[in-house]
Formats: sequence, C-alpha cells, structure tokens
Amino acid sequence: MAEVLVRELSTQVGKQATVRGWLHKRRDLGGVCFVVVRDRSGLVQAVVRSEQEVGKLDGLQNGTVLRVTGRVVDEPRAVGGVELHEPSLEIITPVTEVMPVEIDKPIDHRSENFDTLFEYRALSLRNVDEQRVFKVRAALLRYIREFLTEHEFVEIQTPKLVAGAAEGGAEVFKLDYFGQEATLAQSPQLYKQMMVGVFERVFEIAPAFRAEPSVTTRHMSEVMMLDVEMGFITGHEDVLEMIQDMTKAVLTRVYKERAQDLEKLGAPQLVLAETYPRYTMAQIHELYQKATGKDMSGEVDLTPDEERWICDYAREHDGCEAVFATGLPKSKMKFYHMAAEDGKTALSADLLFRGVEIATCPQREHRYDKLLEQMKAAGIDPEAPGFRYFLQAMMFGLPPHGGCGFGIDRLVEKVCGLGNVKEATLFPRDTKRLTP
Amino acid sequence: MAEVLVRELSTQVGKQATVRGWLHKRRDLGGVCFVVVRDRSGLVQAVVRSEQEVGKLDGLQNGTVLRVTGRVVDEPRAVGGVELHEPSLEIITPVTEVMPVEIDKPIDHRSENFDTLFEYRALSLRNVDEQRVFKVRAALLRYIREFLTEHEFVEIQTPKLVAGAAEGGAEVFKLDYFGQEATLAQSPQLYKQMMVGVFERVFEIAPAFRAEPSVTTRHMSEVMMLDVEMGFITGHEDVLEMIQDMTKAVLTRVYKERAQDLEKLGAPQLVLAETYPRYTMAQIHELYQKATGKDMSGEVDLTPDEERWICDYAREHDGCEAVFATGLPKSKMKFYHMAAEDGKTALSADLLFRGVEIATCPQREHRYDKLLEQMKAAGIDPEAPGFRYFLQAMMFGLPPHGGCGFGIDRLVEKVCGLGNVKEATLFPRDTKRLTP
Repeated sequence: MAEVLVRELSTQVGKQATVRGWLHKRRDLGGVCFVVVRDRSGLVQAVVRSEQEVGKLDGLQNGTVLRVTGRVVDEPRAVGGVELHEPSLEIITPVTEVMPVEIDKPIDHRSENFDTLFEYRALSLRNVDEQRVFKVRAALLRYIREFLTEHEFVEIQTPKLVAGAAEGGAEVFKLDYFGQEATLAQSPQLYKQMMVGVFERVFEIAPAFRAEPSVTTRHMSEVMMLDVEMGFITGHEDVLEMIQDMTKAVLTRVYKERAQDLEKLGAPQLVLAETYPRYTMAQIHELYQKATGKDMSGEVDLTPDEERWICDYAREHDGCEAVFATGLPKSKMKFYHMAAEDGKTALSADLLFRGVEIATCPQREHRYDKLLEQMKAAGIDPEAPGFRYFLQAMMFGLPPHGGCGFGIDRLVEKVCGLGNVKEATLFPRDTKRLTP
Repeated sequence: MAEVLVRELSTQVGKQATVRGWLHKRRDLGGVCFVVVRDRSGLVQAVVRSEQEVGKLDGLQNGTVLRVTGRVVDEPRAVGGVELHEPSLEIITPVTEVMPVEIDKPIDHRSENFDTLFEYRALSLRNVDEQRVFKVRAALLRYIREFLTEHEFVEIQTPKLVAGAAEGGAEVFKLDYFGQEATLAQSPQLYKQMMVGVFERVFEIAPAFRAEPSVTTRHMSEVMMLDVEMGFITGHEDVLEMIQDMTKAVLTRVYKERAQDLEKLGAPQLVLAETYPRYTMAQIHELYQKATGKDMSGEVDLTPDEERWICDYAREHDGCEAVFATGLPKSKMKFYHMAAEDGKTALSADLLFRGVEIATCPQREHRYDKLLEQMKAAGIDPEAPGFRYFLQAMMFGLPPHGGCGFGIDRLVEKVCGLGNVKEATLFPRDTKRLTP
C-alpha cells in the first residue's frame, strides 16, 4: 500500500492508508490509546485498541519515527477531519529518552525562555506552530525572488571573504586568510553597485556579518540580507517606488498564500496603503513631541521609541503600517550616498514597518569626482583594496542608481508578529550564542 | 518620449525612440560615426552624421553613460535588425579614461589571462558574452529552487559562523568571536540533517568556506553550495533518484530556456539518458585500465583523469554525460554516512558530470547508537559543541534520510563549457586572491 501524507488522508475515507511520521503525543484512556502522528503536512490521530499494537510502543517516547496503517474514518472533531482506526504500527526509529521540551502546546513567544528555545531549537521546531515561522520565511524569500526576477533584476552572489570593511567602522570580524587579513562582509554594498555597470539591476540574498556588541531584540551578529540595486533611475523617487511596489506585492501575497500560518501565529492584520506615507525626520520628531511631550529633535537618528510611535501613528492616520522616514541629515549619510541639493540632507529614506527600520533606501553618488571627494572626507583611502575596485567601476561609467539593504530576519519577525528577531532565525547568533 | 530597452526597438520601426545605456564602442568613418550603445538587453548601433552630435562625444571614452534618441530603421545587417538614425545624444555620466580591458571582442576563455580577467572583473563583465555565464547561473539556481519547492523541500538558512568544524579536518577558517573561537561553516551538513526532523525535506543554497591550500582549476576557498536533504527514504536508491530527477529537470530546462546564451558561450550539447549510468569504483578502475593501461585500483578515490575518462566513456557508451560512481570504500566515508551491508562500501555515490564530481550523494546513518559508534571511531568528541546538537536531534528520532552537497560553481562551469570554476564565479577567492 502506498504511503500518503497526512493532509491527503481526507481523500481516502473508507480505505486503508499508511502514513509515516513521528509519534507526536499519546494519551492512554483505559483500553484505548490515542496516538498522534506528525508528518510534514500535519497531524493525525490513530485510535489503537489492540493490545499487541499498543505494546509496540512500550518504552518508546515522543519523537519515535513510525509507520501507521489503518482505516481512514471521518471524524469531524479531529484535526484534519479524519482518524485512523484499527491501525497497525511499525517502528522505524525508536526513541527511548523523554524529550526535554514540550512540542504539542501552543507557543507563547512573549513568555518563552529563549535560552531553552534555542538550546533545543531542532526539537522545539517540531512544534507545528513554531514551524510556520520558517514556512512564512521561505515563502517571503520566494516571493521576493519572483518579484525581482520578473522585474529583470539578476540574482548575483558576491564574496563574503573580503579584503576591507565596506561599511567602514570597527564592527567587523577579521580572520587570517592564507597569511593576509580578511574580513567577513558586512554587506555586498560595493559589489552590487559595481554590478549595476553590468546588469543594471541586481539583487543578492545572503548572510552578512556584524561584530556588533549590541544585545537587543533587534540585533544579531549574522543576519540575512536582501540587497537590491537599480540603475538608470531618474531620481530617488524611483528607488522608493520600487521598494514600495516590491514590499507591497510580497506582503500582500504572503498574507494571501500563507494566511493560515499567519493566523495561527497570531500575526496582526496587514494594513498597507496604495502609497506609503512619508514623513521627514523633523516631522516625526515634531509629531512625537506633540504626542508624548518628549523632545528628540537633538537626535541625529530616530529613537527606537519614535520608530514604533510613527508606525502606530501612520497605521491610524494613513491606514498604512509601512512608513518612509525621509530627510535624513547629510551628516549621517555614508560616503557612497548622494546628498540632496539642499546641502543638508541625504537622498535616502528608512523604510519602517511595524515599529522597526527594515531597510535603508538611498540613491548612490555615481559621479566619480564627487564620490572620491566624499570618500576622502570620510577618511577612507581610495587605494585600499576594499575600495579600489569600486572606484574602478565608477570611473568607467555608472548610471544614476539606488537600492536598498533589507533585513530579512526583521521582516519575517514583523510579518509573523514575533517580539524578537532571533525567533525568525533558525539558529541565531549573538555575542553569547555560537551554538547550536 | 518614453525610454525603451534595446530589445524593444524592433517593435518601434519608423518611430522615434529613446534608449539609454553605455557607449560600447564607436567607429568613425569619414563624416559618419557609428555609436554602439549597450543596455541590459543588448546592443544597438546609432548612425551619427551631425557634427554637433558627434562633438558631444569629444574626449569621451567607452563606458560613457548616455541617452540616445533617434528614428528606428530596419537594418537586417545590424545586430537586432534595427539602427537608430539621425540621433541626438545626451551624456549622463562622462568617462574620460580609456578602459583597461576590451569588452567588444568574443571571449576565448582558454587563452584568457585570469589575473587580468579578475583584476578588471566589473569591467570585463560588460562584455555581453561574458555576462551570459551569470545569466545562466541565475537561471540554474532559479530552476533548482523551483524544482525543490515543487517537491515540498523547504528552503532554510543555517549559520555560517559555527562553533566547530562539521566536516572535521584542519581546512577551516577560524576567527575570534567575542572571545570565543568560531569557524566558518564548511557546509551546512549537520544542520540540514537536524532539520529533517522538522521539515522532512530541506535545502539550502549558501556560501561555504574551505581553507584549502589547493591551487587547481577545481578549487576555491569560498564556494556556493546547494545542500539538499530528504527524509523518509526507503533506501539509498531514493536519494540517487531524487538527484537524478532534479539535475535532469534543471539541465534540460536551462538548455531550453537559455539556449542562446549557451550557444554563444560555445557550451557542448546536452547528452543525458533517462537513467544515469552507474559504475562502481572497481568497474571504473578496470575500464580505465583496459583503455589506458594505467592501473589505479590502489587509489581510494577516482583520480581526476579517471573522472574525465568515465564521463567521456559514458557519453559514448551510455548516451549520458552524467554518471553515478558507486561503491565508495567504507574507509573513505564520513562518520555520518551509512555503511552498506557488505561491510566494505558506503551507501554513497559521486555524481560526475562532464568530467568532474559535482555532488556527493550518500544515505546518512540515522541510528543514534550506530552514529555514536562511527563518531567515536572517527575520533570525534560527541560532546563538542559542533556535534552535541546534531546528536540531540538524532537521539529524538530521525527517519532514514539522505541528500547531497552540490558545487554550484562547478555545475555552472560545466554547463557553460568553461575550463575553470573561477570563470563561473563573479569574484572568485583562492589562496592568492581576496580582491576584488
């Protein structure tokens, strides 16, 4: 008899069928044993009355891998609407130890003990609700790739072992590379810009490494980044529009196609306007001060509380929980960003979603002389190996271009309505955690 | 007037149209200047007779970014079948230096000077034929993802900063991680197996890092790996069948959908049989000895020359340039592979394609006690942080499973008919090269 997936059982009512999976849990109720089997498609209950069959589970614990053959019976009260009756069991991989984590309870992430969660990550993910986060994550990445490929962006892979720190700063991991000093790429920033000269539109989805000592709900030392870069823009507006269109398409799709996962995860409803509202930093400081009495106008950047506040505000006021924060001060911009004509701000915007920054979206400085000037002003040696090739591409002609760097982990966290970026990551890395 | 892509010009014959791109090359022929413009979709020639328009290019070199508006005229002899007549030019980004590489010649990879090629990679890729390699690469990765997603494999991302060397051996990059020693992941091997306990079927496409001092046409220190793992197999056969089906589907599709790219690259015709031929190591040694007189039966592994030879042989003899080399000796297997019942060989096979190994395809040892035994025999401490969590997943029940680790760079190299894996990589890394 061919094996079927649990989700296919409902088409087999009245027939004998075999499923295989894990012993998810069992309950013994005087003479009858309810055996719940989990496979990748769901859960099904087998009702075991035969002493011989129940005896096969003697000494075995949850996690045991087994095959169950039985008659498929309609049972509206059961998960999936069916049960297996008069089953025979076959043990594939016996488990004799008791699992150190419970996997058959709904998850309450806010009260979760993260150390336990991650210490037993490969087991705690056997909770079918916990898994949904990573099904949503895989779907999101797929939709992003499909959207960008349809719009003629070429997916590239650039090296993670690099000669210099592209973003500057001290927060890089260093290692010995056959006698040279190498650093782990903090971002593919310079490479993707170089590739605009080849493919015009490129993107990369890859890990990035930050030796940040920050211990927050928003930081990890290894993150998954979506980097997008688009050439031949007519201005910064084109960058924001592309990012708005992409996120709108992808978020709308994930809420449609993974609706059940998001519902079970308790994710909030998606609230997006046709056009994302835009607020300058100054406006946000002002609105925030009016509402809270706190004056943040001296801050160069938005505070985390302001980020949360403006997203809440925009959801109420503009019917949109994605917000572009514009008018970032020129003093804060990276050397490869383009300054606005006002001489005070950068042609850049932060995309905020559900209370956190998920992407920075600038236009780049594509004019060689101007870039060289900004580089020198930032104290960067144009001849350093990390920058020489970037300047080479620029010297031989790049069109106006811009793009974004997207934190995928944060996006998944926010989409699923989780409280910590680590929950959206299979095996998160922070200052303390290098395992599992 | 809206801008169009070069490939769209043929639909605009008789009309005025604007394209934007790079000055790819120019020829001056007494009174007329032929200006070839390149954009992401192709090349088009503008015929410039106006002295004023030609004058705009004074002092400018190839690479200059410009906008050209002209009348679209049928010209069967031109690339793309059209030309732009009486054009007006607008310079977007001027380039005044002469490009250090030629980008308008066909590429002869075999005579290419790699140092020059990679030193100017971001420029040499502006050669439209050179770009095709990376369009094929992006397509291959997309088809792989689509095939695996259709077959219910969940795409995962596992950490590249890890606590121990999963594959053992000394060839790992080490770094200081907030005071701990971390290594860069050589493969996601243990993680993907752990995830079989969650999703049954998983895959990952990600960089892997090998501090191999090898200087060959086949090695790099940073490679792109496709890792696939499938649970609930009924035996090793299921693993080989899955890999055969995947590669057949993906290769057939890339030869169909990227036919023009592959033709222009001079890639050989694809020769695949419905079922890939299988030869044991012993058979290959024997056949090779008969043909060449060289006795390699003392070698534990196939020699590079044998790998080439058996692929040629199978193409002739079996009508298939993909070959499974089976019967790998048990002595050579990794601790997490499953030994065959004969006690001498491993349940593993190498997939050879066009003369090189592109994947290793074993069944895994999923029985906890057996695995522990093999681990100890290999001299590995089961309590070491790199292995503890792997054993944890195993202790709590994994089904029989197997998978493969695929070198994407080698696959692209072989598909495109290149001679060196580095040509298939945007910015390759070897013992000497850490830039660009």
